[in-house]
Amino acid sequence: KINGDRLWDSLMDMAQIGPGVAGGNNRQTLTDEDGEGRALFQKWCEDAGCTMRVDTMGNMFATRPGTDPNALPVYVGSHLDTQPTGGKYDGILGVLGGLELIRSLNDLNVKTKHPIVVTNWTNEEGTRFAPAMLASGVFIGMHTQDWAYAREDAEGKTFGDELARIGWKGDEEVGARKMHAFFELHIEQGPILEAEGKDIGVVTHGQGLWWLECTVTGKDAHTGSTPMNMRVNAGLGMARMTEAAHQIAMAHQPHAVGAVGHCDVFPNSRNVIPGKVVFTVDFRSPDLAKLTSMRTQYEAKAKEIADELGLELSIEPSGHFDPVTFDEGCVAAVRGAAERLGLSHMDLVSGAGHDACWINQVAPTAMVMCPCVDGLSHNEAEEITKDWAAAGANVLLHAVAETAEI
Amino acid sequence: KINGDRLWDSLMDMAQIGPGVAGGNNRQTLTDEDGEGRALFQKWCEDAGCTMRVDTMGNMFATRPGTDPNALPVYVGSHLDTQPTGGKYDGILGVLGGLELIRSLNDLNVKTKHPIVVTNWTNEEGTRFAPAMLASGVFIGMHTQDWAYAREDAEGKTFGDELARIGWKGDEEVGARKMHAFFELHIEQGPILEAEGKDIGVVTHGQGLWWLECTVTGKDAHTGSTPMNMRVNAGLGMARMTEAAHQIAMAHQPHAVGAVGHCDVFPNSRNVIPGKVVFTVDFRSPDLAKLTSMRTQYEAKAKEIADELGLELSIEPSGHFDPVTFDEGCVAAVRGAAERLGLSHMDLVSGAGHDACWINQVAPTAMVMCPCVDGLSHNEAEEITKDWAAAGANVLLHAVAETAEI
Ligand SMILES: NC(=O)NCCC(=O)O
Ligand SMILES: NC(=O)NCCC(=O)O
Repeated sequence: KINGDRLWDSLMDMAQIGPGVAGGNNRQTLTDEDGEGRALFQKWCEDAGCTMRVDTMGNMFATRPGTDPNALPVYVGSHLDTQPTGGKYDGILGVLGGLELIRSLNDLNVKTKHPIVVTNWTNEEGTRFAPAMLASGVFIGMHTQDWAYAREDAEGKTFGDELARIGWKGDEEVGARKMHAFFELHIEQGPILEAEGKDIGVVTHGQGLWWLECTVTGKDAHTGSTPMNMRVNAGLGMARMTEAAHQIAMAHQPHAVGAVGHCDVFPNSRNVIPGKVVFTVDFRSPDLAKLTSMRTQYEAKAKEIADELGLELSIEPSGHFDPVTFDEGCVAAVRGAAERLGLSHMDLVSGAGHDACWINQVAPTAMVMCPCVDGLSHNEAEEITKDWAAAGANVLLHAVAETAEI
Repeated sequence: KINGDRLWDSLMDMAQIGPGVAGGNNRQTLTDEDGEGRALFQKWCEDAGCTMRVDTMGNMFATRPGTDPNALPVYVGSHLDTQPTGGKYDGILGVLGGLELIRSLNDLNVKTKHPIVVTNWTNEEGTRFAPAMLASGVFIGMHTQDWAYAREDAEGKTFGDELARIGWKGDEEVGARKMHAFFELHIEQGPILEAEGKDIGVVTHGQGLWWLECTVTGKDAHTGSTPMNMRVNAGLGMARMTEAAHQIAMAHQPHAVGAVGHCDVFPNSRNVIPGKVVFTVDFRSPDLAKLTSMRTQYEAKAKEIADELGLELSIEPSGHFDPVTFDEGCVAAVRGAAERLGLSHMDLVSGAGHDACWINQVAPTAMVMCPCVDGLSHNEAEEITKDWAAAGANVLLHAVAETAEI
């Protein structure tokens, strides 16, 4: 069993870095605070006897050697970056749960045949630089590194420049590693486990996603002196398209969601009819047909709205992954671990995207989930209990110990 | 007659300060560029033999003495501040048209009984600090100076601090001046004069306005893992309220407008259901009953939308003026000047708010308008012709010469 108190203390220590305004965290990727969090994680890993390597995307790999020099490592981990108004556990639990697993193996003086590597993937959240899961996406060859380096934040700073600036551009070639398996522990970020009273979610699938960045162009004009029939109101277009995204998701129930989280209005002046709005629609479903249908219907409806209002419209996908089916063997290892530990569990579809969704394409992969209070995440009030965290980390330990061969 | 070339050159010189990104200007109030524009205007006024005084709100008053020491001055002027994506003429024409009037009287060596004062009112646009026409509002006692000083921009900087920072907080007590009359020359900012082929708009009335700052509060949550029925989506609420503002304005046609120009979404992350949106509805009508009815209907409808979605809603008025009827005598002076000059003209209701709308409460006031291309304003592409500008300034000259008694 892992040490639940030690895991919790590390979670609380990490949460000191980049505090939010309401009890959570704002430790967005490639900020100074991200750099501080990485340094603390590196120190902890080295104190636990691991060696740290960093690749050219800033992905961090802390290795605990195995007994067989020819055996591929078993990987665990998640991400340390947060939303601008994020919680203390989303991602962090998977990284520090991996570290706790190593600390516990050390305490028990247990060796594994396969090395174990704890990973911190860069820019999982995708807020500062879209898309989400950017560095694990480069790792598996979904994106090129040059393309990733050129991603820009809202101020026009690039991913590549910011990675260099905070000093975490490593020299290891990205994607060069081969994995025996990958396990990611994560909070559910949804309400199901808590509602069903289960300790553990055995993640069998992940939803697919489309991010559609919409640029609606109208004409800046005076809100007072421009007659209603002469307006080319990009703000009104955005409002109707936001409603359309919602209605389309509702028409694809169950197992479909849709919303607009990002929206920038220009010039954003009280007495100027917006000449431009840039916003992103987020559609998800575990069902590829539904996911595709939502995108197609939205594109048609948005075009209709734009035409009615005389607006120009461009829609650029800014994030995408297909629905994921995790590896049967790894999923069975997670389920078996929960069984052996006497923890209540259920199969689960991940509502969020995770680095595991990409890694699943290059290595046998599964995820362990633990509940979170009220299913709330991407909110500073995100909360879990020490027991839930410990149960999740214990399942991770047992699934990994089996796979890495004690 | 005024010198149309000189007026045009001054307009083009002023437009060098705080250039925009598309041929217009970004010289927002109390920025460094605003300070530069003020210094240039002061220099020009002093070169024309005027003395400059500045009040504690940063309002600038350049005086050309009259022959009767007991006669109250005739005031002209407008504002030098611009929208973030503003034009070269909105406001500037009224200030530099006033300066041109003085230069022309100097050229002709004509004295007036009443002094003439050219004014630059601070923060007419109201983009950086709401409400619009802030400093003329303090001048007439509509707002207190302390309240005005405490207005904050999007970064939390206050009007008072920024006025001091740019060095244009004067020592003259605001509102201490008495006026014989006030005339404001302005571009129409709407399409009517051009469509009707008229040189001059004789402004008899101004629309009233309500700015309603709406704060919609929901719950930050994950766009992927939060089921549709658990969402408290402030962005969806904003979209529906934006549509409602539009529909309510449409239901009050003719002579009513409504739109949302300002909208900030929080935390503004692609994968976070917005927990908060702050936006401002702008309703206007020359008919007080319609103006009041739009506000009342909107407040009820917005409440209904918020209740349906489980959102909290607060609505704070952040700008207001009643419809305005300008002074009969001053209006007649403008109409008579256009007649004498042989310019085509028509009566007009101002669609925009102007400093003249406030000054009308403390002095006989009227406005002269000239056309602008396609009725376009609050857009960098705002355009007028040299002839239109000259015609407007000539009407201003003749109306003022009559009122100030040559
Ligand atoms: N786990 C998580 O919140 N990932 C961010 C990517 C997504 O939007 O699903
Ligand atoms: N003239 C002008 O654009 N004034 C700004 C105030 C308003 O919104 O009407």
